[in-house]
Amino acid sequence: MNNLKQKILSENENDLNQIEAELSENLKPYLDLVSDVARHILFAGGKRLRPLLLVLSAKLCGYHDDYAKTVSTALEYLHAATLLHDDIVDDAVLRRGKTVAHSVYGNAITVLVGDFLLARALAICADSGKIRVIHIISNLTENMSTGEVHQLMRKGDVSLTEDEYLEVIRRKTAVLFQAACTISAVISDAPQEKEDALANFGYNLGLAFQMVDDLFDYIMDTADLGKQVGADLREGKLTLPVIYALKQANPADREQMVKIIQNQDFSVEEFQILTALMKKCGGIAYTEQKAMACIEKAKEALSVFEPSKIKDSLLDIADYVLARRT
Amino acid sequence: MNNLKQKILSENENDLNQIEAELSENLKPYLDLVSDVARHILFAGGKRLRPLLLVLSAKLCGYHDDYAKTVSTALEYLHAATLLHDDIVDDAVLRRGKTVAHSVYGNAITVLVGDFLLARALAICADSGKIRVIHIISNLTENMSTGEVHQLMRKGDVSLTEDEYLEVIRRKTAVLFQAACTISAVISDAPQEKEDALANFGYNLGLAFQMVDDLFDYIMDTADLGKQVGADLREGKLTLPVIYALKQANPADREQMVKIIQNQDFSVEEFQILTALMKKCGGIAYTEQKAMACIEKAKEALSVFEPSKIKDSLLDIADYVLARRT
Repeated sequence: MNNLKQKILSENENDLNQIEAELSENLKPYLDLVSDVARHILFAGGKRLRPLLLVLSAKLCGYHDDYAKTVSTALEYLHAATLLHDDIVDDAVLRRGKTVAHSVYGNAITVLVGDFLLARALAICADSGKIRVIHIISNLTENMSTGEVHQLMRKGDVSLTEDEYLEVIRRKTAVLFQAACTISAVISDAPQEKEDALANFGYNLGLAFQMVDDLFDYIMDTADLGKQVGADLREGKLTLPVIYALKQANPADREQMVKIIQNQDFSVEEFQILTALMKKCGGIAYTEQKAMACIEKAKEALSVFEPSKIKDSLLDIADYVLARRT
Repeated sequence: MNNLKQKILSENENDLNQIEAELSENLKPYLDLVSDVARHILFAGGKRLRPLLLVLSAKLCGYHDDYAKTVSTALEYLHAATLLHDDIVDDAVLRRGKTVAHSVYGNAITVLVGDFLLARALAICADSGKIRVIHIISNLTENMSTGEVHQLMRKGDVSLTEDEYLEVIRRKTAVLFQAACTISAVISDAPQEKEDALANFGYNLGLAFQMVDDLFDYIMDTADLGKQVGADLREGKLTLPVIYALKQANPADREQMVKIIQNQDFSVEEFQILTALMKKCGGIAYTEQKAMACIEKAKEALSVFEPSKIKDSLLDIADYVLARRT
């Protein structure tokens, strides 16, 4: 897996360096405090997966202009904006092993810098001169905010269904991956067939990405995870591994799991009991299979494109999303 | 003054009703909770000044399509989004006589619905098909968020200068009024001269609007104001009446004022002492004069337009901004 990550990083080193430089450059003319908060979230070891997807997808459509890198930063700003706001919403403590921005700078500034980053993303997209890019971004932002609201409304509810979960992760994660790939087709003036294929690729990749992320909370330790293990559950977020396990469990196991879930102050031991029950009821394996199926669909979607080095890079990213451990 | 308000309302009744209907209609397809929070802020007796300015300015440019009303709702959504976030940032208690949204629904939902309204505003503007409208909106959102950050950074600082104050109100208020008027020129394909005139009109009107708003905190009582008197000062917001008074005061008066300002838990009596000193030092009169000068500039800017009923309505609005007491 580390080899795959290294391969992706080295093959795309130039693009990634340029993305990194643009992310920094675009923040320069603003108030120091605004840049500081923005940098806190933007330069905390993010993988730049979304911008890289945009740049590679554009190349796959034959678009090699450096401008793709500029547009791609919009997605990372938008992503950072939602992370800043979501961490406030979720009362999170750690992100990527770092204290969350609102604990360092306070809620007030963090809300405002989130708004600022949203506006920056928008301004960059407006510079594309393509109204469809704006439509994609606005639709995306609507989806992300309402997805978070939906998640919040069903907080801690053990009756959450798999369909509802899928709707939440579609809105909060998949649409952003999908947007990255679709925007690339739009700026490339690619034919509809290719745009649809890339949209499909991004969408399924995004679903898988979130499922794998949701698994991490149950299969990793705090040091690797970069945030408190069990944080999702403490925040009342029921994800697929739990939802499926609860559905499959016998009454006694279900009761024990529900008891632990509903006590958000559960101990380390209780959390271990819960994850053991989840494994027993097939929650982990089911989620892994679902994520794998999404990755297969994503890769299949790219079949309309001729074989190429760029296509291989995108297929590698799909494999990496599944195999990654950070 | 009430006559002027009545005149504006009755002359523009149809437009205002249509704006009201669209504001409501545009929220329908969304989650109930999202609509509820949005309605809490949107239908709390706002004057619809910004949408009305857009609709009237468009007519002044010869654009009479109903579409102007649709675009105008974007400004009200954007305004509502910033109010939701600003009330969290300022730890506000009341707005327009009503408990603030985050006290009713919680910070988490309120942050997200603010994001949602921003996205809605953006989507509506994207539907205009005019990339310049998007540029105006993104620039505006950047300005508003950084303006608030600037205000927050200088919270409670008695060394705040008049220039800094002007920069803050330019960003947080004037740019939105300016955007309303500029967008109208853009959708009307008006010549540059008319666009500049309207931009100038909106900008000065916005500055005056905020100055008058800032005066209210010192010349009105809580019932009329719809929020706690002295709230600005308790939030550490130093506005022009105070800034000017501090600059003009003799050392003893200044010391007394600073003492009250720096104790954000000041009593009603202390607040009365402060306002008396502000009057004595000319802070109230100076702010009134400044607001009046901005209104004169705003009205002057419209001189490029031929006399008309629509122009008279805009001039009435300028007078109303100065004379209003809510």
